[in-house]
Amino acid sequence: MKWPVHGSNPQYLYEAMEITMPDTKVDFSANINPLGPPPLLKKNWHQLMDVVSDYPDPKGDLLKQKLAEREGIHKNQILIGNGGSELISLLGRMLAGKNVLIVQPAFSEYEEVCRMNGCEIDYHQLESNSWEWDDDGFLAKLQKADVLFFCNPSNPTGIFYSKTRVLHLIKECERTNCLFIMDEAFYDFLLNYESIVPYIEKNPHLIILRSMTKMFAIPGLRLGYIMAHPLIIEQLSTLQPHWSINALALKAGEWCLESGTYINETRELIQTERERLFAFYKEWHFEVSPSKINFYLLKDLSLKDQLPLFQFLIEGGIIPRHTMNFPGLEGEWLRFAVKGPDANDQLMEALMEWRKNNRLSSL
Amino acid sequence: MKWPVHGSNPQYLYEAMEITMPDTKVDFSANINPLGPPPLLKKNWHQLMDVVSDYPDPKGDLLKQKLAEREGIHKNQILIGNGGSELISLLGRMLAGKNVLIVQPAFSEYEEVCRMNGCEIDYHQLESNSWEWDDDGFLAKLQKADVLFFCNPSNPTGIFYSKTRVLHLIKECERTNCLFIMDEAFYDFLLNYESIVPYIEKNPHLIILRSMTKMFAIPGLRLGYIMAHPLIIEQLSTLQPHWSINALALKAGEWCLESGTYINETRELIQTERERLFAFYKEWHFEVSPSKINFYLLKDLSLKDQLPLFQFLIEGGIIPRHTMNFPGLEGEWLRFAVKGPDANDQLMEALMEWRKNNRLSSL
Repeated sequence: MKWPVHGSNPQYLYEAMEITMPDTKVDFSANINPLGPPPLLKKNWHQLMDVVSDYPDPKGDLLKQKLAEREGIHKNQILIGNGGSELISLLGRMLAGKNVLIVQPAFSEYEEVCRMNGCEIDYHQLESNSWEWDDDGFLAKLQKADVLFFCNPSNPTGIFYSKTRVLHLIKECERTNCLFIMDEAFYDFLLNYESIVPYIEKNPHLIILRSMTKMFAIPGLRLGYIMAHPLIIEQLSTLQPHWSINALALKAGEWCLESGTYINETRELIQTERERLFAFYKEWHFEVSPSKINFYLLKDLSLKDQLPLFQFLIEGGIIPRHTMNFPGLEGEWLRFAVKGPDANDQLMEALMEWRKNNRLSSL
Repeated sequence: MKWPVHGSNPQYLYEAMEITMPDTKVDFSANINPLGPPPLLKKNWHQLMDVVSDYPDPKGDLLKQKLAEREGIHKNQILIGNGGSELISLLGRMLAGKNVLIVQPAFSEYEEVCRMNGCEIDYHQLESNSWEWDDDGFLAKLQKADVLFFCNPSNPTGIFYSKTRVLHLIKECERTNCLFIMDEAFYDFLLNYESIVPYIEKNPHLIILRSMTKMFAIPGLRLGYIMAHPLIIEQLSTLQPHWSINALALKAGEWCLESGTYINETRELIQTERERLFAFYKEWHFEVSPSKINFYLLKDLSLKDQLPLFQFLIEGGIIPRHTMNFPGLEGEWLRFAVKGPDANDQLMEALMEWRKNNRLSSL
């Protein structure tokens, strides 16, 4: 069977598994804010009709200005993209033929776009049950690399690696003349994030990638951005098709940046729900990754391969993300988004039912 | 001075020309349906809020199915794109290093993306005052080309080359084993278009490019498609970033295809207005290209370089498209969209005022 390469779009998962899609289902495979889009976007929705008939500003100047102000950098250090995927695709083209080192497990698109552009790929594989940072063999691999990809907080584990760790990596990359691409797609779900953006000022090797579709629940609109040295931004922007970011995403993005209260509410909700879920998992003997954000890995310790659990959930309309294409996981875990209370209740009920029929031998 | 490479986004034109942008202005530089988006899109606008929070279908399956039905082809012969610009950019990457022949004058992006991908560029230049098809030297150039770009109806002239002419080109490209890329971005403004889509069935060398942003006045949403042999579609789609077409464009595209009456109304409006404008130009001694669609070239015969006229209009808030980056035109013409009656009246008034102060010596 051919597994879908991404979460979301569950119709393709049911198709691949040859299971009829139930009428009611809850999608835990996409890591989107359960509160939905910010109130300001909902309130102003009708205004977006006005921007449909004009070409989008190809420079996205207003949104770029607002991002620059928020991050304390200059407009020429920012590139807006048609979603994180477009930006990763542009990075892949810029890196054509390079030696790439990826800290694994990680979002699969880094490897995909690098392979497509003839890069040599190596992994720094974090051990699969703790995912703690391990320097063993890392520096030797970094020495040979032109580029390092690191996703922090990590997708798929949800683990956050400290600023001290990141600064150490920045320093090592600087020393070895290695480009450091740090994917912060989920940084805004963290309660105590300390920005590393100021470091792009003096470090031409650092590239920070951000998504606006997760926190602001607008994956249908597509919006992300890169922060880096102006020369890198310039190089990437020449590869980008004209008018690549639609006018609605640009306008909605401005409103998202004005939605501070909503961001705080989201973080609190996610923390409360994650703690509630994790307490349940402890009680019912499911193992999870020590996530600090809005998704986590889960496994039933009684199974080596989680496929039977995956199938059980899918058939009941509960949709996790498989981990077949995460090197180092290969299906031994399932990934779930932290959703709102009702959805999380449904998930826990389903897992309770599963546990009743699949007791651990030690219980 | 650095001219903007495209029409639309007039703020960048005023910036480049160092002219203060007037509060009221009419933009004739973007060739968009003056009726605005189809009534169905306006009516259903609130429904689009629902698709914001889900990832777009990465295959755009429903819209593709509807396009396939309308065109009488199979879904696997269609690739949907994030606007025509993304599709042209994908074509450029697919054609890396090839010998490219462009029928000029033409939309500047073909050349731009081909150059960026290391192609060798040659022109088949149509004579600048009639733009009639001229075989002189064409076959010798085609013999050396891997790819032929041809825009029909032509952007910037608006001239439509007959189906007989196109079939002749298809045949010659087949004979010389040359890929034939036909840009039909404005085909749906024609009153008597005869489709060449059936020819892609038996001709693996033919690629047809279409835009949905012009007729349906949705450039802010970004939407276009390519029709070609399934192997070409497959090759192009591997180059496309994931989720490249936003969910709103996909849904709006479906509604656009159900807007037949609106298309007919548009065509009639454009014809009536174009005839009214052309009668005025004849009376007031402006020369125009024999356009059959929603834009045309214009020049004041008393000027070799149209810059003074361009400046006069820009200062008054009437915005034409300069032709500095159209090989063979180089600023000797201005391009105007056919807009609604009020806007066209304003243009004619401005040109009348210009003529009063700039009489032809022969008058």
